[in-house]
Amino acid sequence: MAIVRAPSTASAESLAERQRTISVSEFFLKNRHLLGFDSPARALLTAVKEAVDNALDACEEARTLPVVSVQVQEVSDHVYRVVVEDNGPGIVEKQIGKIFGKLLYGSRFHRLSQSRGQQGLGISAAGMYGQLTTGKPTRIVSRTGTGQPAWEFVLSLDTSKNRPDLHKKLQIDWERQQGTRVEMEMEGQYRTGAHSIELYLEQVAAVNPHVTLDFVDPHGKAVHYAPSIQRLPPEPREIKLHPHGIEVGQLMSMLRDTRHKHLLPFLVNEFSRVGRKTAISIIERADRGLSPRSYPRRVAHLQAKALHRAMSATKISAPSTDCVVPIGEKALLAGLKERVSADFYCAVTRPPGVYRGNPFVVEVGLAYGQGKSANARAVTLEATEPIKLWRFANRVPLLFQQSACAITQAVIQTHFKNYGMAQTQGALPIGPALLAVHFASVWVPFTSESKEAIADYSEISKELKLALQHCGRLLRAHIGKSKRLQQAAQQHAFIEQYVPHVGEALEELLELNEAERDESTQKLARTLHDRWSG
Amino acid sequence: MAIVRAPSTASAESLAERQRTISVSEFFLKNRHLLGFDSPARALLTAVKEAVDNALDACEEARTLPVVSVQVQEVSDHVYRVVVEDNGPGIVEKQIGKIFGKLLYGSRFHRLSQSRGQQGLGISAAGMYGQLTTGKPTRIVSRTGTGQPAWEFVLSLDTSKNRPDLHKKLQIDWERQQGTRVEMEMEGQYRTGAHSIELYLEQVAAVNPHVTLDFVDPHGKAVHYAPSIQRLPPEPREIKLHPHGIEVGQLMSMLRDTRHKHLLPFLVNEFSRVGRKTAISIIERADRGLSPRSYPRRVAHLQAKALHRAMSATKISAPSTDCVVPIGEKALLAGLKERVSADFYCAVTRPPGVYRGNPFVVEVGLAYGQGKSANARAVTLEATEPIKLWRFANRVPLLFQQSACAITQAVIQTHFKNYGMAQTQGALPIGPALLAVHFASVWVPFTSESKEAIADYSEISKELKLALQHCGRLLRAHIGKSKRLQQAAQQHAFIEQYVPHVGEALEELLELNEAERDESTQKLARTLHDRWSG
Repeated sequence: MAIVRAPSTASAESLAERQRTISVSEFFLKNRHLLGFDSPARALLTAVKEAVDNALDACEEARTLPVVSVQVQEVSDHVYRVVVEDNGPGIVEKQIGKIFGKLLYGSRFHRLSQSRGQQGLGISAAGMYGQLTTGKPTRIVSRTGTGQPAWEFVLSLDTSKNRPDLHKKLQIDWERQQGTRVEMEMEGQYRTGAHSIELYLEQVAAVNPHVTLDFVDPHGKAVHYAPSIQRLPPEPREIKLHPHGIEVGQLMSMLRDTRHKHLLPFLVNEFSRVGRKTAISIIERADRGLSPRSYPRRVAHLQAKALHRAMSATKISAPSTDCVVPIGEKALLAGLKERVSADFYCAVTRPPGVYRGNPFVVEVGLAYGQGKSANARAVTLEATEPIKLWRFANRVPLLFQQSACAITQAVIQTHFKNYGMAQTQGALPIGPALLAVHFASVWVPFTSESKEAIADYSEISKELKLALQHCGRLLRAHIGKSKRLQQAAQQHAFIEQYVPHVGEALEELLELNEAERDESTQKLARTLHDRWSG
Repeated sequence: MAIVRAPSTASAESLAERQRTISVSEFFLKNRHLLGFDSPARALLTAVKEAVDNALDACEEARTLPVVSVQVQEVSDHVYRVVVEDNGPGIVEKQIGKIFGKLLYGSRFHRLSQSRGQQGLGISAAGMYGQLTTGKPTRIVSRTGTGQPAWEFVLSLDTSKNRPDLHKKLQIDWERQQGTRVEMEMEGQYRTGAHSIELYLEQVAAVNPHVTLDFVDPHGKAVHYAPSIQRLPPEPREIKLHPHGIEVGQLMSMLRDTRHKHLLPFLVNEFSRVGRKTAISIIERADRGLSPRSYPRRVAHLQAKALHRAMSATKISAPSTDCVVPIGEKALLAGLKERVSADFYCAVTRPPGVYRGNPFVVEVGLAYGQGKSANARAVTLEATEPIKLWRFANRVPLLFQQSACAITQAVIQTHFKNYGMAQTQGALPIGPALLAVHFASVWVPFTSESKEAIADYSEISKELKLALQHCGRLLRAHIGKSKRLQQAAQQHAFIEQYVPHVGEALEELLELNEAERDESTQKLARTLHDRWSG
């Protein structure tokens, strides 16, 4: 029988026997929708996305202009092979297993530095999904430079232990001097349109004008995105925690784990924007027997709380912001002009803000109108549909969970009626426009591990709205005149459509003859027209 | 200086040095919004919710009618103590540390059985949040029965190792014979209204009529929810995987790990609804040299794929559904009548459905109208606002992420205009109604670890819509007559409001005198009224 009857009166002892550790891989395998692998179509896109994000991060960290190729091949019904290859620095042999075969392993989680990947989950999860749905392992080829061997690894993920299970490992000949290639097979569905790999790559190209991208789709169609800028963006710098973004428990852990012997150097060296003078003033404000020479490991609970309060209360410069690298108004405008057909373009990069101690920058680009572009593949805009909203976090397009995202909420809450567009409450504005909104930060607060929507911190919403309002005002200036002309035309059409019916009703009600009716109708139309145009 | 410059041209070697394992606690500490600890107000509610869910699960597993008390005390500005105590089976000494001090540890993850908790994350995460924001550890008292010692544990979570850090452990005197008490201090904000602890408990009481709940809020106000049913719901049974809900990679793992020596007993014993006959027909259909006496561990990749295809293609009874315990139409109606003031109530429990091999049941209760209830605390309904939507999963109220939930999407996509309510496209209907929608399953596919929204599987949406449509038809029958009367009244008001203005316009345009104007106006009003009433 398939039914297992639990002991009918479970005791604490029988309940205890059922308690078990859950491996992080088992957890995410069962909850794979959390990582973006909930449907075959989305899974295929997520796998491409994770591999491309990793490739771009690796190239940029090694200061190499990224050249990335993506292939999606149909292997059999509903089964696809994803191949992503880059010219990045390659991966040293001993790291390949863990990077592709272990969840929660990576280089970016413990640092505060702007990058696409941050969690150490994505690429291993993609391999795990492939393995679950096809039984096939992941194949990786990597070489770290000329003169180095190229390694081929074939591996799967041992989910009950969350560690790589190596099937094959050998040195091979590879035509590429440096770079990494990853191949995965998985159940999938190849889509075009709103949630497609092509749209994802299109948007990647729009906000990463320094990247060369090649894509071959399952039908063999090739698309080439040439770079419009031959220069890497500035390198994002790594920063330390800002004293205003820390919680008391975190401070207590840091005090316990620090290698600094005294409180003064601890504060100066482990935090952003804390010099000697600031550190001394924090310690004095905290009081409770603390001194610059107190031993961090011996700071008691109440002292730590006082120190934490003093850190919050002390005026400290906002975090250094060259750790955040925005796209920039110029590059954003260039990207939009290349990818979108419109009459009017504008872009705004806001000054940096801070949420929970993390610096961030918001940028908004706007394209408006139904003009024609030189680029035959350019996106066109519809006058009677909701605007197109392109969302980005650290230069990565966000394609899913639009309604749950702080960016969408900020757009909805901005009164686009004030800027000349139609909008009903709680909805996106209607009109021939595309908004590209970019959020860049050392740590993006995603609402889920699939990294598709940004959490709604008030500091972030505020900056988003300010940027949107700024673009809105530029738009209003542009459409002011044409809009008024258009409204007048609509009102005229309205009068022409309805007044004859009113005339007929009057004829019947007041027993007018035809001539009287026509005269009244004309008078009515003229009166209304004069009044509305006035 | 606070800025750490990365080596300006990172090599594969320097990148490798930065790679590190991320502990699951570090991951969820940094991403604590994923678990529902993103704002102080929500964190406080989430902590209560996790503790109450655990208490109810434990009582029901031990077949004890739950009596649970909840206290939220203000300790200092923005710091609250949450105390939850139950009469459940208690926890054996050696499990207390891991249950409260380790993420991803629990009894329900590896089983298919309907319960509130499923992930082994919630209560430890609540303690971790308390520790982060106040530095204070969690205190637990538990006794497993008369004659057993009561244990007091004080512990925190070592986040870098994801294991309990025990501060204190001793036997104490405790007035309670059996049960568990948990106390946590955390930064919080106490709210009333839409996302309040009180509303959460109110909704718990509505769908758990067998539970006794006592709540004392930070102002000392006590609320008592008495049980309206003195009987536990039937015990949910544990089931095995259904062959139609398995993926090839999972089948391969099971073949590798099974304790059964041959393929036939493997299929019969490890799957739901597979008897000898079905197992033989699966093996024959798979072919490829497989036989009932094949060794599971030696099944090759292509054989496993063939076996998987054969399992999908073989007709197998739907999973047994007594593993899912709905609230039931009668109890749901009773709950609504107790908690909501209305004129009309109905409830529908759908037959069980299956998604990815997991049985589930959808139930919808509806209250409509502005009638008065005997219960002074009952919810009242507004005619001109969007309906109230109460969402539940395995009897747990879902208070956040409403728009991301399959339940909300199903309500929005149901055409309530057909049932006599106002509704604009893409929005909740408007009117004096409350919908209580319950999803019960052996595994609820939540969209995030905070367990606030259900993922949008098509099988689930379909059942939700069928249940909503059923309730809709019952509603239409009820409001048919009164609605028609109401519409007529509205039209009448409309005529009275606008016709005088038309009269004045006519007076001006056609140079009528006052008497003529009044006559025309009356004629117009009568004509319109007759036409609309006709």
